Amino acid sequence: MAAEVAEQPAVLAHLLDAGRAEVAAVAEAIAHRRPRFVLLAARGTSDHAALYAKYLVEVRLGLPAGLVSPSTLTAYGVTPDLRDVLLVAVSQSGSSPDLVEWTAAARGAGALTVAVTNSAGSQLAQAAELHVDVRAGHERAVAATKTYTAELLALWLLIDRWAGGDGAAAQPVPDAVAELVGRRAETQDLAERLASDHGAQVVLTARGYASATAREGALKLMETSYLGAHAWSGADLLHGPLAVVGPSTPVVAVVPTGRAAPTMRPVLARLREMGAPVTVIGAPDAEPGRSTDLILPPGLTEELSPIAEIVPLQWAALDVALRRGVDPDAPRGLSKVTSTW
Amino acid sequence: MAAEVAEQPAVLAHLLDAGRAEVAAVAEAIAHRRPRFVLLAARGTSDHAALYAKYLVEVRLGLPAGLVSPSTLTAYGVTPDLRDVLLVAVSQSGSSPDLVEWTAAARGAGALTVAVTNSAGSQLAQAAELHVDVRAGHERAVAATKTYTAELLALWLLIDRWAGGDGAAAQPVPDAVAELVGRRAETQDLAERLASDHGAQVVLTARGYASATAREGALKLMETSYLGAHAWSGADLLHGPLAVVGPSTPVVAVVPTGRAAPTMRPVLARLREMGAPVTVIGAPDAEPGRSTDLILPPGLTEELSPIAEIVPLQWAALDVALRRGVDPDAPRGLSKVTSTW
Repeated sequence: MAAEVAEQPAVLAHLLDAGRAEVAAVAEAIAHRRPRFVLLAARGTSDHAALYAKYLVEVRLGLPAGLVSPSTLTAYGVTPDLRDVLLVAVSQSGSSPDLVEWTAAARGAGALTVAVTNSAGSQLAQAAELHVDVRAGHERAVAATKTYTAELLALWLLIDRWAGGDGAAAQPVPDAVAELVGRRAETQDLAERLASDHGAQVVLTARGYASATAREGALKLMETSYLGAHAWSGADLLHGPLAVVGPSTPVVAVVPTGRAAPTMRPVLARLREMGAPVTVIGAPDAEPGRSTDLILPPGLTEELSPIAEIVPLQWAALDVALRRGVDPDAPRGLSKVTSTW
Repeated sequence: MAAEVAEQPAVLAHLLDAGRAEVAAVAEAIAHRRPRFVLLAARGTSDHAALYAKYLVEVRLGLPAGLVSPSTLTAYGVTPDLRDVLLVAVSQSGSSPDLVEWTAAARGAGALTVAVTNSAGSQLAQAAELHVDVRAGHERAVAATKTYTAELLALWLLIDRWAGGDGAAAQPVPDAVAELVGRRAETQDLAERLASDHGAQVVLTARGYASATAREGALKLMETSYLGAHAWSGADLLHGPLAVVGPSTPVVAVVPTGRAAPTMRPVLARLREMGAPVTVIGAPDAEPGRSTDLILPPGLTEELSPIAEIVPLQWAALDVALRRGVDPDAPRGLSKVTSTW
């Protein structure tokens, strides 16, 4: 897992270089078909990449988007009418039967289908009309790291190009990620706090694009350290789950520079009122009157920030596992490729 | 909270009787406009009603559907192109500013808009072109109970009528709910297990329509008892979060009779392999070779079962709170109407 976290700058640079032509061709094929509605299908870590893409589609393209409920088809046998729909299926392995079945059925029901995978020969890549290879190389650790950030970048490149962009904003991504890979020591305080007894439960929160970071950070902590990690959007947190936060519940808020940051201020204020120990990962001025615990490198737009933001949480998850004596490469109950129906 | 849980059969019977004409008129107005995509907007408990409606729309109407990310508009200032879209906004109070703003903007962007609320005079009801009143009467407890089941029934009646149904399948709902209201004692074992020390973390799981029950049950446990309750679809659970389940992690699986039940079998088998203490709420034959812990009353279709299934979890949440010495009517950090932007 540590090797794959460290490999991310090279993986992202490789995708920017070697993947650009393929992504551009797929983006042009999509733009030509002018979809009016976008559905995203994924599971686990890739579902967080899909959530990221949902925001991009809505904000950059002004198209309504939704996440697929695979059981509509696999349990209830229904394929909706998908004319004018683009289905984007995201999966590291490209082999979960429910996603393959959904993608094939969606294609039959009139959708334009795109698979975003790390496996060009996979069933999912074959089932979809178009394919984007995230080119992350073989991933061995059960907890996905480099395939997640490669999926995010591939989805950004795809949607940016579809929206008429030239992809230039992504050039600083590998260096920003490399900087955070090199700052593992800064996450030790967080790891120590999370690994202590009262840290058996932890809450991650963010809004907008960074919501994907909160969800993926929570999943990493669950997978590698068995922590009861919850992720909610800042707004959803205030609508009920806030009650679980007590004076000994560690909270991690991800608040990069950008338009979602002001919407997190009332959330941070409420968490402070409740006495929660809050760690802020984000912009230097994320929280008025307080210094940010882990400052993200400047130079990335809010859209691209999730590709970097997740790195400190990957390190924290790994280090919590090591402090707790858990092997982060072999979590209990999990295997690298999960088949669900 | 106890009074409102017990009031549900009367609330549901009243909605079936007094609400039918209004629901039919709204359903006909929707059918006339022939929307091609459906978006649902909600927060907290109402978001679980929205998830339920998403399955109904996909399965009964064969239309693609998605849950709205309100921050697209409120943080990023973008309203997608919503021609041919039906937006359904669900909110007990009808007063959260983000939902009101989204609904008004969606209406301006070409969507047909419907508000489903317990407050006919609310800003949300005014902002939407059409309104369905769930007629649950004033709800005083912070943890929503009767407004949740009334929202589910109102959404079922609306979508059933839109799909050409006559609503008859819902007639047994009040009696089924009344039966479960009367079986509070049966949830005491579950409440005792959840209230014990190792019960600080609990996992709820289900698939298909019952996914809404797992999510809402988890939220009730968080709101009233501050338990770290997680809800995942059975399939998503296997894609990572399963790692948090250990031999002392209580799991509640909701498995009613129906087409999703077979998809839960491999999930139950994996949970048993991991030694987790699993409580099954559902059909008598939900798990091969084992008796179901809490058997749901017969006579409801799988579609309508969530309106009844939630009752044992409402009782359990209330009784865990009482056992832990927490006042379930006044959870820390929460108020009845939550305003988010």
